[in-house]
Amino acid sequence: MKFGIVIFPSKKIQDYANSMRRRYDPHYALIPPHITLKSPFEATEEEIKEIANKIDSIARNFKPVNVNIKKIGSFKPVNNVIYLKVESPEELDSLHNELNSAFDGDQEYNFVPHITIGQKMSDDEHSDVYGSLRMTKVQFDDTADRIHLLYQLDNGSWTVYETFRLGKE
Amino acid sequence: MKFGIVIFPSKKIQDYANSMRRRYDPHYALIPPHITLKSPFEATEEEIKEIANKIDSIARNFKPVNVNIKKIGSFKPVNNVIYLKVESPEELDSLHNELNSAFDGDQEYNFVPHITIGQKMSDDEHSDVYGSLRMTKVQFDDTADRIHLLYQLDNGSWTVYETFRLGKE
Repeated sequence: MKFGIVIFPSKKIQDYANSMRRRYDPHYALIPPHITLKSPFEATEEEIKEIANKIDSIARNFKPVNVNIKKIGSFKPVNNVIYLKVESPEELDSLHNELNSAFDGDQEYNFVPHITIGQKMSDDEHSDVYGSLRMTKVQFDDTADRIHLLYQLDNGSWTVYETFRLGKE
Repeated sequence: MKFGIVIFPSKKIQDYANSMRRRYDPHYALIPPHITLKSPFEATEEEIKEIANKIDSIARNFKPVNVNIKKIGSFKPVNNVIYLKVESPEELDSLHNELNSAFDGDQEYNFVPHITIGQKMSDDEHSDVYGSLRMTKVQFDDTADRIHLLYQLDNGSWTVYETFRLGKE
């Protein structure tokens, strides 16, 4: 089974992201708007119980993290992904690092916390869409007090396995 | 905000349900296959914290529940809903009752634990589909060790707020 770890931002931010994902993100129906903390990894149903315990201990050592969004960005030229850029990387960074080093330590690329709002676009579509969105005024100052462990179904959609509160005593 | 409480059955059951939901359930993309324990209710973000604590204490007093499925049923003539019928109503029943009486005690109808696989059909479509599905051999003997509190986004889709393990000491 394939698992992943994410933050679901507040409903307000999810609704805002969905207003764009609806048009620009083919994963719109597969998963709610999210910040990926650990990209998809394989584990059995037995292994995941131990992994969930690990995540639980890590989460308890963190306080709720700020989710501040001020702009829309793009990963072009790496890929044609448009996203809500999430600020305050220090706390998120260390949460991301702890979660990833707990498993394998493999880091394919630097962590850029973000909420994808558009992907799988042609170069032309990306230019058009990003051109019209990049100047959008965005302002969300939010807090996330929990993270979620998900698994993927055969149709590509994701179901939540468990939530972990940050800093639960 | 609108909240609800559900059980997500095992991945195996969800994949099976989705193979039919894909064609027959317009809610296919809005929520994974689920057993509803408490139908949608309104609560503020403040109220939900207390509600989550209540659910937590209830969940701790229950052991994991069996999710056994042996047949496909229909709610016709009440409505044109086709579903996987979930057996073992005693334990599920009391979990359902405790969760509902903790809030308001309003029960619109008897609890029939089920996983919807088709809905919003015309009478003709319902006859066709149910006619071909009702003789299907189904056999799942499964256990659910957690329940989920969800909230609904503006686009109608559901995000998990928190999971609660049944019988967590």
